[in-house]
Amino acid sequence: METKHIAALRAIVGEENCFDDTAHKIAYCYDATRCRYEPDAVVFARNEDDVSQILRYCNENRILVTPRGAGSGFTGGALPVSGGIILALEKHMNQILEIDMENMVARVQPGVINKHFQQVVEEKGLFYPPDPASEDFSTLGGNVSENAGGMRAAKYGITKDYVMALRAVLPNGEIIRAGKKTIKDVAGYNVAGILIASEGTLAVITEITLKLLSKPKLRQSALGVFPTIDAAMHAVYKTMAAGVTPVAMEFLDNLTIRAVEERFHKGLPTDAGAILITDVDGNLDAEIAHDMQKIKEKFEENGCTEFRSASTADEIAALWFARRNASQSISIYGSKKLNEDITVPRSKLPELLSRIDDVARKYDVKIPCFGHTGDGNVHTNVMVDASSESELKKGHDAITEIFKIAVELGGTLSGEHGIGLAKAPFMSLAFSEAEMNLFRAIKRAFDPNNILNVGKMGL
Amino acid sequence: METKHIAALRAIVGEENCFDDTAHKIAYCYDATRCRYEPDAVVFARNEDDVSQILRYCNENRILVTPRGAGSGFTGGALPVSGGIILALEKHMNQILEIDMENMVARVQPGVINKHFQQVVEEKGLFYPPDPASEDFSTLGGNVSENAGGMRAAKYGITKDYVMALRAVLPNGEIIRAGKKTIKDVAGYNVAGILIASEGTLAVITEITLKLLSKPKLRQSALGVFPTIDAAMHAVYKTMAAGVTPVAMEFLDNLTIRAVEERFHKGLPTDAGAILITDVDGNLDAEIAHDMQKIKEKFEENGCTEFRSASTADEIAALWFARRNASQSISIYGSKKLNEDITVPRSKLPELLSRIDDVARKYDVKIPCFGHTGDGNVHTNVMVDASSESELKKGHDAITEIFKIAVELGGTLSGEHGIGLAKAPFMSLAFSEAEMNLFRAIKRAFDPNNILNVGKMGL
Repeated sequence: METKHIAALRAIVGEENCFDDTAHKIAYCYDATRCRYEPDAVVFARNEDDVSQILRYCNENRILVTPRGAGSGFTGGALPVSGGIILALEKHMNQILEIDMENMVARVQPGVINKHFQQVVEEKGLFYPPDPASEDFSTLGGNVSENAGGMRAAKYGITKDYVMALRAVLPNGEIIRAGKKTIKDVAGYNVAGILIASEGTLAVITEITLKLLSKPKLRQSALGVFPTIDAAMHAVYKTMAAGVTPVAMEFLDNLTIRAVEERFHKGLPTDAGAILITDVDGNLDAEIAHDMQKIKEKFEENGCTEFRSASTADEIAALWFARRNASQSISIYGSKKLNEDITVPRSKLPELLSRIDDVARKYDVKIPCFGHTGDGNVHTNVMVDASSESELKKGHDAITEIFKIAVELGGTLSGEHGIGLAKAPFMSLAFSEAEMNLFRAIKRAFDPNNILNVGKMGL
Repeated sequence: METKHIAALRAIVGEENCFDDTAHKIAYCYDATRCRYEPDAVVFARNEDDVSQILRYCNENRILVTPRGAGSGFTGGALPVSGGIILALEKHMNQILEIDMENMVARVQPGVINKHFQQVVEEKGLFYPPDPASEDFSTLGGNVSENAGGMRAAKYGITKDYVMALRAVLPNGEIIRAGKKTIKDVAGYNVAGILIASEGTLAVITEITLKLLSKPKLRQSALGVFPTIDAAMHAVYKTMAAGVTPVAMEFLDNLTIRAVEERFHKGLPTDAGAILITDVDGNLDAEIAHDMQKIKEKFEENGCTEFRSASTADEIAALWFARRNASQSISIYGSKKLNEDITVPRSKLPELLSRIDDVARKYDVKIPCFGHTGDGNVHTNVMVDASSESELKKGHDAITEIFKIAVELGGTLSGEHGIGLAKAPFMSLAFSEAEMNLFRAIKRAFDPNNILNVGKMGL
C-alpha cells in the first residue's frame, strides 16, 4: 500500500491504530477457515466517526476494505482476499452502551463478545437467546453480519429476530440509522433487514439495538436414545406438533456417539441409531412438567428406548456433554473435516440423513452428523485424510452432492455460517441468474465502487 | 391508454381480465384514505406467470403499474397516483396453497384474506398471530407489503416475524424466490426482509410462506381502570418488566372512553383517565392464573381503581367492546379524523401522551388516543370539522407537530400503516438525506425504469 495512504489513515485514527508491519498483517490474515490472505494494512477504528472517515477515504481512493470482528467465521467472511485494509472493530468498539430495562432493549457496539453480553444481561434478569457455538469469542457485529443461529433457535429464533435497529456507515462514509427501539416500525425500507446476513458487503455496522426477553427462571433437560435416526427424527416433529416448543432439540448420529464414547468413555449407547438431547424452559414448575411429560410421551411413542431427564446444573451438564464435545470428537475419523451447516424443512430431516448415508457409501467416506433438529439445521462433517489429494477430492465431491440434496429438499446451503468464500462456488446450485443479478444490483446500490468486502458471496 | 397496450395486456390475461371502462376505473380508484386516482386500466392477474408477463410488457413500454390487494390501506399505497394500470391480485390469486402440518408452515397466494387464513389454520389447531384491525378484509399480500401489525404484537410480533419466504416478480418480469421453509437460512442477501414493508414499490409478491404456531388452548382477558393516563402507562411497563408478556395490552384515553359511553351506554367509567384491556393466553391453567395474578398486582401497585377479569367468550367480548368500538365512536368529536399510528419506545408513552395533550390545547382540537401500549403504538386521532378549511389546516399542523414529537422520542412516523402518499411529506422529519438517497438507490436496484408503484414513500 502506498505510503501516502498509510499516512492518511494514520491521520484519521492515530499512529497507534494503523499498522502495515508484517506482524499485524499475519495476525489479521486468517479466520476459522484456516485460509490465509494478508491485508495491506490493519486499521483499528475507535468510534463511528473513524469508520466514516476511513470509508470515505478508502472509497475516494478505491482502497478495498474488509471489516472484521473476532475473525471466528467458518466461511472466510473476514478475509481480505484481494488485499486492501482490515477495518478491525473488536479492539476499541466493544462497549455495551445501554441496557434499557423499561423497554427491554440494549444498545451495543459491534465488537462486544456474544457470551459477555449474555452474562451481563442475565445478571439483570434479562435474556439474549442467540447462542452460536462460537459464543465465547464471536462478536455481536459478526453475529449480525452472518445472522448467527445457535441451539436455542427452535424456540427463540436467530439473531435477526433480536435486531431492532442498526447504525451503520455506507462505503461512501455516510452514517445511516435503520430501525427503531420499537416493535413496530414501517417507515421507509427495512434496511436493517437487508444488512443482517449481508456479511459485511453492504455497510459497516457501528451500533446494534437488540431486543431482550425476561430470563426464564427454570430449565430442565432430557436425553432420549433411539434405535434409528429415522425414529429420532419422527420423535422431533411429533413433539413439536404436539404444541411443545423445546428451547433446543439436538441430535447426534451413531458415528458421532461412537466418536464421543471412544474419546471420553462416558458409557454412551454406541449401538444407538441416534440420541436426542432437549431443553425446555419457563417460569412455572407446571409448565416444565407438562412439556417434559409430552416430550417423554412423544419420544416413547416413536421408539425411544431410554429416557433420562435432568434438573440440576450438574445433571444438565452431564446430559449435554456428548453434544458439547461432538465437534472435536469426530476428528477420530479423519484429519480434515469438511464441515457444512445445511438446513432443510424439519420434516425432510429423515430423507436428508438417509441420503447423506448413501453419499457416504458412494464415496466411501465417514460423514458423522449432529446438530439442531428443532430447526432442521444439520452439521454435516465429511471426514477425510488431509494429506491425500484423492481423499480431499472425494470429500469435495461428496459435499457438492450433499448441497444438491439439501437444495432439492427445499433447504439452504447455509443455516448459520454464511456463504463468504467457502460456499461461493455453490451459489449457482441455490440461486437463479435473476436472483444473483438482483444480489449484484443490491450490492451496487450500497457500494457502487465495490470497495467493501469484495469477492464474497459469489457476487 | 393506447389501444395497442390494452390489446397486448388482453392477449396475456384474456378479454375477461383486462378492462379500461369507466366502471372498473372508478371501482379501483380509491382506498381507505378516500383519495381518488383513476387508473388507465385494471388488469386481473390469474397466476404468477401472468404477473411476470404483465410486468415485462409494462417495463418494456414504460407503463406504470400499481399492485393492489383489497385496497384497505390507510396511506394510499394502492392508489395509481400517476395513472398506468392497477395490477389486481385479489380476484384470482387468493388460494391457500398448502398447510404443512409437519413443518407448521403455510404457503398462500397474496390475495388471501387475513381473517379467512386465521380461521382455516385454527381449525387445524394452528395459529397465525398477526391481526391488523383490517383483518376481515385486508389481504396477506397487502399485510406483507405494509408489514401489518395488530393487537397481538406485544407477545407475538408482527407480519415480518412470520414471513419465512416469498416468491415475487421483479419489474422486469423475472421471477425470484427469497427465503426458505426453514428457520435458519443465511445464503444470499435477505431479499424477503427488504420486500416486507416495501409497499409494493420493489416487486410484486406472488406467493408467501408463513410460519405458524400451535394454537394456545386458553385465553383470559382483564380490564383495569386508572385515574390518569400516566398511571396506566406505568402499569404497562411494570407488568412487562415483571416477566409477563400479555398477548395484547390496549388502552383507551378519557376522550375515547367518553365517546364509546355516549354512543353505546355500557356503563364505562367516564371520569377515568384511562382504561387498559389485556389478554393472556397459554396452554395451562397455572400459566394463565400466574400471569393474571401478576397483572392484577402490577395494575394495583400503579393506581388501578377497578380490576375485572373474564374467561368465557361472552365475558371477553364484553370487556373488549369499548376497544373494538373506539375507532367509530370518536367521530362524535368531528366529521374528519386525521388518524395516525405513531409508535415510540414503550417507556416514552407517558411523555408522548402528555405532549399530545399540549398539542390539543395549543390548537384547540380534540385528540382522542387509543391503541397498543404493549408495543408503544398509539392511534392518534386529530378530530376536525371537514367542512372548515381553517379546521383542516389546524388539524394538519397539529399532526405535523405530533410527528415531530414522536421522532424526538425515538419513535417512528408509522407503526402499522406505512408511508404511501399520506405520510410521504413527513419523511424528511424522520430520515436524513443519506438515508433517503439509500432508499432511492435500493428502489433503482429493483426497478431501474421506475414503473412500480411510483410516487410513494417520498422517493
